[in-house]
Amino acid sequence: MATMTMKMPREEKAVSYASRYSLPAEPKDNDTNSNLCSGPVILLSHGDPTGFKPFWRSVGDKCKVTIDSCDFMSYLTDVGTVCWFLEKELEEAIRQLHSTVGNAVTDDRHIVVGTGSTQLYHAALYALTSPGGPEPVNVVSAVPYYSSYPEETNFLCSALYKWAGDAYTFDKEGPYIELVTMPNNPDGQVRGPVVNRNDGKLIHDLAYYWPQYTPITAQADYDIMLFTFSKSMGHAGSRIGWAVVKDKNVAIKMTKYIELNSIGVSRESQHRAAKILGAVSDSSQCIGANFFQYGKSLMAERWTKFREVINRSRLFSLPKYMEEYCQFSGEDSEPHPAFAWLKCNNDIEDLEIFLRRYKIMGRGGSLFGSDPKHVRVSMLGDEETFNLFLERVSSIQDTISNSNGNGI
Amino acid sequence: MATMTMKMPREEKAVSYASRYSLPAEPKDNDTNSNLCSGPVILLSHGDPTGFKPFWRSVGDKCKVTIDSCDFMSYLTDVGTVCWFLEKELEEAIRQLHSTVGNAVTDDRHIVVGTGSTQLYHAALYALTSPGGPEPVNVVSAVPYYSSYPEETNFLCSALYKWAGDAYTFDKEGPYIELVTMPNNPDGQVRGPVVNRNDGKLIHDLAYYWPQYTPITAQADYDIMLFTFSKSMGHAGSRIGWAVVKDKNVAIKMTKYIELNSIGVSRESQHRAAKILGAVSDSSQCIGANFFQYGKSLMAERWTKFREVINRSRLFSLPKYMEEYCQFSGEDSEPHPAFAWLKCNNDIEDLEIFLRRYKIMGRGGSLFGSDPKHVRVSMLGDEETFNLFLERVSSIQDTISNSNGNGI
Repeated sequence: MATMTMKMPREEKAVSYASRYSLPAEPKDNDTNSNLCSGPVILLSHGDPTGFKPFWRSVGDKCKVTIDSCDFMSYLTDVGTVCWFLEKELEEAIRQLHSTVGNAVTDDRHIVVGTGSTQLYHAALYALTSPGGPEPVNVVSAVPYYSSYPEETNFLCSALYKWAGDAYTFDKEGPYIELVTMPNNPDGQVRGPVVNRNDGKLIHDLAYYWPQYTPITAQADYDIMLFTFSKSMGHAGSRIGWAVVKDKNVAIKMTKYIELNSIGVSRESQHRAAKILGAVSDSSQCIGANFFQYGKSLMAERWTKFREVINRSRLFSLPKYMEEYCQFSGEDSEPHPAFAWLKCNNDIEDLEIFLRRYKIMGRGGSLFGSDPKHVRVSMLGDEETFNLFLERVSSIQDTISNSNGNGI
Repeated sequence: MATMTMKMPREEKAVSYASRYSLPAEPKDNDTNSNLCSGPVILLSHGDPTGFKPFWRSVGDKCKVTIDSCDFMSYLTDVGTVCWFLEKELEEAIRQLHSTVGNAVTDDRHIVVGTGSTQLYHAALYALTSPGGPEPVNVVSAVPYYSSYPEETNFLCSALYKWAGDAYTFDKEGPYIELVTMPNNPDGQVRGPVVNRNDGKLIHDLAYYWPQYTPITAQADYDIMLFTFSKSMGHAGSRIGWAVVKDKNVAIKMTKYIELNSIGVSRESQHRAAKILGAVSDSSQCIGANFFQYGKSLMAERWTKFREVINRSRLFSLPKYMEEYCQFSGEDSEPHPAFAWLKCNNDIEDLEIFLRRYKIMGRGGSLFGSDPKHVRVSMLGDEETFNLFLERVSSIQDTISNSNGNGI
């Protein structure tokens, strides 16, 4: 089918985030196949974690916060600490949560709060590099890597660091920084660093190392570990991330980045995050176990349903994951990643473009350094959108199966 | 006096913000004059606007906000607008407030929200430059300029832009960006651009263009105007700033910067800022006129007291300001800037170091591109600190006057 491989322009670099949600161009008169669906657009290109909202709605007043007119007026929370804009209550809640879940070591580590873990990624790059080097430090990550890393690394054309692509094929000499996303975004695989040279520094992005997504097999204990309130609890709009940092000087430099970039981090959001993380750690409130149970059930149910649909034909396939023992839940369990790394098995060259014709907006494989036969789709959206997605995938499978008679 | 001109090390580049609050080094045994005061440290090096706190305390429940467990979970507020993470209620409150105060045109302008106006400064630099130029675009501002601009501009060693210092002496060819802070930080003067060439672009920092600091003489109407919740209302901890932007493409690129830097801005803080800005605009609540009256009275009273103390000797001097008609208050009034740009008139070479010996922490003139005989001190702190500052300055004046007999 001509439409399957038709090239559509990607968004301009400067076009806003919202444009990624835009509809495919209206079909031209001589291109009746260019828009193959009359239903609503299904937005799965971003990991907006609204799927967890029903849980938080059910919690009622337990995590409600009230902020008075004169609260949080100062820039400063505690001038005596490394991260001078970090709310003490948030720091305590973070340490307690990691202790409860068992997913990261925080004893004798510094906590740096950021406006989401994205700001902390920039802070870490700044902290791990210095001006005056002969070349920018190469930043690599194993394919498929998080699609925003290349642009986030390069957009300011810094002389401190530059994106150098796939860690598997990296062969340049000199210092480098390797990003290790574990479990990985987009494909959910558990993995470690791949370059493994002495002149490398590591940033571990552990945004998805929580029981609802993957078995907790060990306490992570790396030099710089990034976490986010968005993916752990589902509160993306708060823009709260945190780094767990071994080296004091790195934590100081990360704090300095945030000072120079935004003079701190919203204290209202920190206060609310402290309340919510605190409640999840506090077994007496019965929120913690319930939240992770809810999240895990939700993800497991979605993955089961999605695999059922996918398995009805051979048009698409999904990664397979091994069961492992989860130290948090005390049982063997399979990963249920936040994203599905969907692959098409027929002659569709660009799956993102193909799905856009059916008004399914995913993120194409080439953005992740991978091939365009892959698309990343979010498994975190609201229930209605997810169910509509299943229906539409089913319908695509039926259409393609009928058109070539063999499901491929 | 030897101690007056003694050089002390400035803070290291990578040392955290909090270190600026650190005490002077302990006096050595052979340096009995190095610490000339046994009282507490007086921190006036930052514009932390806690002086407005009593007003907001008096407001009681009127601006209290309550946030439920499931509020603000999505990254997105309105995917149809240029700034897709801007809360609609905040946008409306911003436009209404500027209309009420009469300090800026917002009709047919785009509003971009940021994590403080600092993030918006970075966003504006990104929006006004493009990769691939032969040289980074020069960024200038007239001396004395805001002390953070050089480091904020240069710290990532961007190839897009670089700090080029004083606008008065700028003579390089090619495109440039001029920062116009109006009224100026540190010296409170009202001023316009000084380079005035066709290949220049302007960023107007209007953080202090509010009735408590300066007469509102006209509706500002510039290409990019930066404002901040910190200095307008006193809520620095919320980290909310906004830009009023004429050109849609510039607004889109600024939004893109914030997407790549932090994927949006705290929605809790935006919600609270909307509530507070809205209340100040709403005459029925009697907060608006009262807030600006309170702020203006506070600033006027502090300036009167400070000038009285300064005028008792000739050791220090302060800038003088002209009365102008304020369209907001409907009366002639003098500026009462957020900072005092204090100058020493005797042979003290470095006023910052001199004052540190008396445990007064200001910010030295050289950081503003000016001479070290100046220090910027905040007039925005709490009442107790401000009164202690007046007492200590008096005491210094008495000491110096007694030591050389003529007050100089």
